[in-house]
Amino acid sequence: MVRSIGVLDSGIGGLTVVKEIVKSLPNENIIYLGDTARVPYGTRGKDVITQFALEMVDFLLSKDVKFLVVACNTISAVCLDKIIAVSPVPVLGVIDPTVDHALKTSKSKRIGVIGTRATIGSGIYETEIKQKDNKAQVVVASCPLFVPIAEEGLGDHPGTRLIAKDYLSIFKDQDVDTLILGCTHYPLLSNTIKEVLGENITLVDSAKPAAETLEVMLQEKGLLNNGSLSGKLEIHVTDAPQRVQIIAEQFLGDPLPGGLKEVVLANL
Amino acid sequence: MVRSIGVLDSGIGGLTVVKEIVKSLPNENIIYLGDTARVPYGTRGKDVITQFALEMVDFLLSKDVKFLVVACNTISAVCLDKIIAVSPVPVLGVIDPTVDHALKTSKSKRIGVIGTRATIGSGIYETEIKQKDNKAQVVVASCPLFVPIAEEGLGDHPGTRLIAKDYLSIFKDQDVDTLILGCTHYPLLSNTIKEVLGENITLVDSAKPAAETLEVMLQEKGLLNNGSLSGKLEIHVTDAPQRVQIIAEQFLGDPLPGGLKEVVLANL
Repeated sequence: MVRSIGVLDSGIGGLTVVKEIVKSLPNENIIYLGDTARVPYGTRGKDVITQFALEMVDFLLSKDVKFLVVACNTISAVCLDKIIAVSPVPVLGVIDPTVDHALKTSKSKRIGVIGTRATIGSGIYETEIKQKDNKAQVVVASCPLFVPIAEEGLGDHPGTRLIAKDYLSIFKDQDVDTLILGCTHYPLLSNTIKEVLGENITLVDSAKPAAETLEVMLQEKGLLNNGSLSGKLEIHVTDAPQRVQIIAEQFLGDPLPGGLKEVVLANL
Repeated sequence: MVRSIGVLDSGIGGLTVVKEIVKSLPNENIIYLGDTARVPYGTRGKDVITQFALEMVDFLLSKDVKFLVVACNTISAVCLDKIIAVSPVPVLGVIDPTVDHALKTSKSKRIGVIGTRATIGSGIYETEIKQKDNKAQVVVASCPLFVPIAEEGLGDHPGTRLIAKDYLSIFKDQDVDTLILGCTHYPLLSNTIKEVLGENITLVDSAKPAAETLEVMLQEKGLLNNGSLSGKLEIHVTDAPQRVQIIAEQFLGDPLPGGLKEVVLANL
């Protein structure tokens, strides 16, 4: 039995990360868990986010995964340390690879970051960027409505543009050349964000940087699957009404292999 | 020890109902429970909503309440029957009183209803209105983004107006004279809804009709508190970051007495 990579997310936005992992590591088995019964996490308090995330980790560890990818900026920002502390297998969050990629992309080293209230409130992006380049300037904004807007498929709606104009107004005279989309849902609003901020800002999201770092880490740790069979992708969610299936396909960019499996998580 | 009225809600929107209960029954003790760790309910599946609601009922029954008010349209629409089945004390949902009030308000008997996806999907408003007046005409629309918009305090934002225009377009040529705001969050968008639909439509929400029906039921069942002391209001939530406190005061229209108490619900 070939062990899988476990991927956890507050909902289904993390499937954008899965999509990139499948592209670069087509032989790996992946078990994904999205907490669709309790999404969104980004508006909640630290203790609740940590409790929910550790319940998901328990589920994935019970499936004997060989590696954990935290494909959610909010969880990565709030309690990655707690997950690393309990996990017997290596853990990768999305923030570190995203910061590296943004620093490579930015010429001016003036970097913008948008995310959920919990992610921005944690201050983690400023801290990590400054640690890696103490001359970099960071401007941040939380955009709490972007998650429900993405889930409703209204990323390109004219009403969304007006809300985005408000959320992003802080970047207007800041000369940032790179904007980190610090939430896996936000790529669904890329067009609107570009319209508001202009074409001179490069948008950076977590999906590709996370998949690239995962490949390096698997190699280093001797955990790559060197078989020649195509990997299997199992998608588990905590609530699976039909609508979740439809949006999941939008995030994955493909029909769902084998549909969605529903699981019930036990509270601590 | 004077027994309390238990009020449950998916979040803090139900405080609009509490506000009306306090006005009309100032001597009653009230214990409120809002599931802020898992709000919103209206986008989730029936099984998950039912599980979460029954966990809240357990908590309130453990406080020996004398009556349960389900101050949430989504829970009332999806699983009121399940709550009645397990509860040893009388239960009031918000839909029945709201329908009565709308039928009294409407002259043309052409009634519009807006609510969450779960509430509208249940078809309960059409069913109940037709049962009480089989000549009434009902037009419905779900408005999934209105809950997060209300919670973000953006009810009057120009972007919200454009989104509302889309959601409410179905009512344009329908000649409805009364619109049921079938979600306790929606009163925070009243101005925008009136701007979009014009002043000729009367908006009806659940708060006052539910409080009036509660008074009648308590009287009938001999459960009124006839003491002369002011009642106490205890507000419990499953997640209490500072922001929830601020929004809770908006919904209640008053400073919170004694702040918010945080509780952890156990999954079934």
